[in-house]
Amino acid sequence: MKIYDTEGFPNPARVRIALAEKGALDRVAFIPVDVMGGEHRTEAFRQKNPDAVVPCLELDDGSHISQCTAITEYIDGTFDGPSLMGSGPKERARIAMMNLRAESGLLNAVGDYFHHATPGLGPDLETDQCPEWGTRRKAVAAQTMSYLDDVLAQNDYLAGDAFSVADITAFAGLAFADFAKVEIPAGLENLQAWRAKVAARPSVAG
Amino acid sequence: MKIYDTEGFPNPARVRIALAEKGALDRVAFIPVDVMGGEHRTEAFRQKNPDAVVPCLELDDGSHISQCTAITEYIDGTFDGPSLMGSGPKERARIAMMNLRAESGLLNAVGDYFHHATPGLGPDLETDQCPEWGTRRKAVAAQTMSYLDDVLAQNDYLAGDAFSVADITAFAGLAFADFAKVEIPAGLENLQAWRAKVAARPSVAG
Ligand SMILES: N[C@@H](CCC(=O)N[C@@H](CS)C(=O)NCC(=O)O)C(=O)O
Ligand SMILES: N[C@@H](CCC(=O)N[C@@H](CS)C(=O)NCC(=O)O)C(=O)O
Repeated sequence: MKIYDTEGFPNPARVRIALAEKGALDRVAFIPVDVMGGEHRTEAFRQKNPDAVVPCLELDDGSHISQCTAITEYIDGTFDGPSLMGSGPKERARIAMMNLRAESGLLNAVGDYFHHATPGLGPDLETDQCPEWGTRRKAVAAQTMSYLDDVLAQNDYLAGDAFSVADITAFAGLAFADFAKVEIPAGLENLQAWRAKVAARPSVAG
Repeated sequence: MKIYDTEGFPNPARVRIALAEKGALDRVAFIPVDVMGGEHRTEAFRQKNPDAVVPCLELDDGSHISQCTAITEYIDGTFDGPSLMGSGPKERARIAMMNLRAESGLLNAVGDYFHHATPGLGPDLETDQCPEWGTRRKAVAAQTMSYLDDVLAQNDYLAGDAFSVADITAFAGLAFADFAKVEIPAGLENLQAWRAKVAARPSVAG
């Protein structure tokens, strides 16, 4: 099994953390993709992932899975170790909901700000910017951080008592926010304490 | 179990089709939400769903699940009948991937066009439009339709041989496209044939 990705980028980090939680990092060959050089937009890469983004998982039968949530579903069902997607309909649904909120409201909102309202990946790649949209999405990211802080006033982790894919997604979202200079609003102490706790996990601290 | 929703709206339709596939429509009490009157943005509704959108599932323990994909995960794990989310890591991952593509590239793209670049739900609700963004998203919806047509040249359904949540999401996306006057590009015969086949399912045709 292979993963085409770019080390240090926020979405690839999600899948690497998921694999590390399962103790399965060494079960995968990582193939570097030169995103800054536009390799992910070549016809050859689009054959693997028509979304033209990293990461992309290649299975031993040659088929491909992209989208971090879908890749994590595969990893979670394939390797032993703590459950990342949950078990039972109620827990699985809650994790799916919180993962989607962290993705659309935080990680993707920061990404939209970065790609549309800052120089992003540079003029060669950012050929279709919409700054007005990017600016709105920065505000959405800050609102989502406040919302996640409220959730963490009730629970240890975003979807309840246990660490899950929702925590991975939100953690990657905060890392991307630092990189894109989207500040965490002042006073979100639950979010900051949760972030320190997740950062100390072996899957993240290494 | 209760569902707060608005009949005839595209996202609520996704969950109603999922329930009908499971033969479980009569296991749920539907509570109407007056979206045109702004009820979904009241503090009382945000307590149930901070995303301030319909649908929202209320479980018998009083907890809430929102986001159609998460609600469908709950429905699929709770009721008998054909699997909507798949079984086994590979099938589940493929369905999750295709569902996300149909959601972000079609249904949500049409929604962004509708809410940002047309009068949408009217001036009382559409208070933060970004027409430039909406226009781009209309183009994304058309591209996604072409992509889905290519997929359907290989498979009977979007994620393989069996009907799944990805088909529900894409079908709702096309219904929303009709409503928002986003045309299906000419010549997408696989997509049109698939659409007719899905429309004839008892869960959709009623
Ligand atoms: N929703 C996708 C997002 C993937 C994504 O946006 N990846 C970024 C790297 S973090 C990328 O490839 N960007 C390339 C570009 O913007 O051109 C997922 O879950 O995998
Ligand atoms: N991603 C959400 C989308 C829900 C959504 O956008 N629902 C629409 C109705 S189809 C809504 O409530 N719109 C209210 C508004 O735009 O103010 C889901 O999967 O449930």
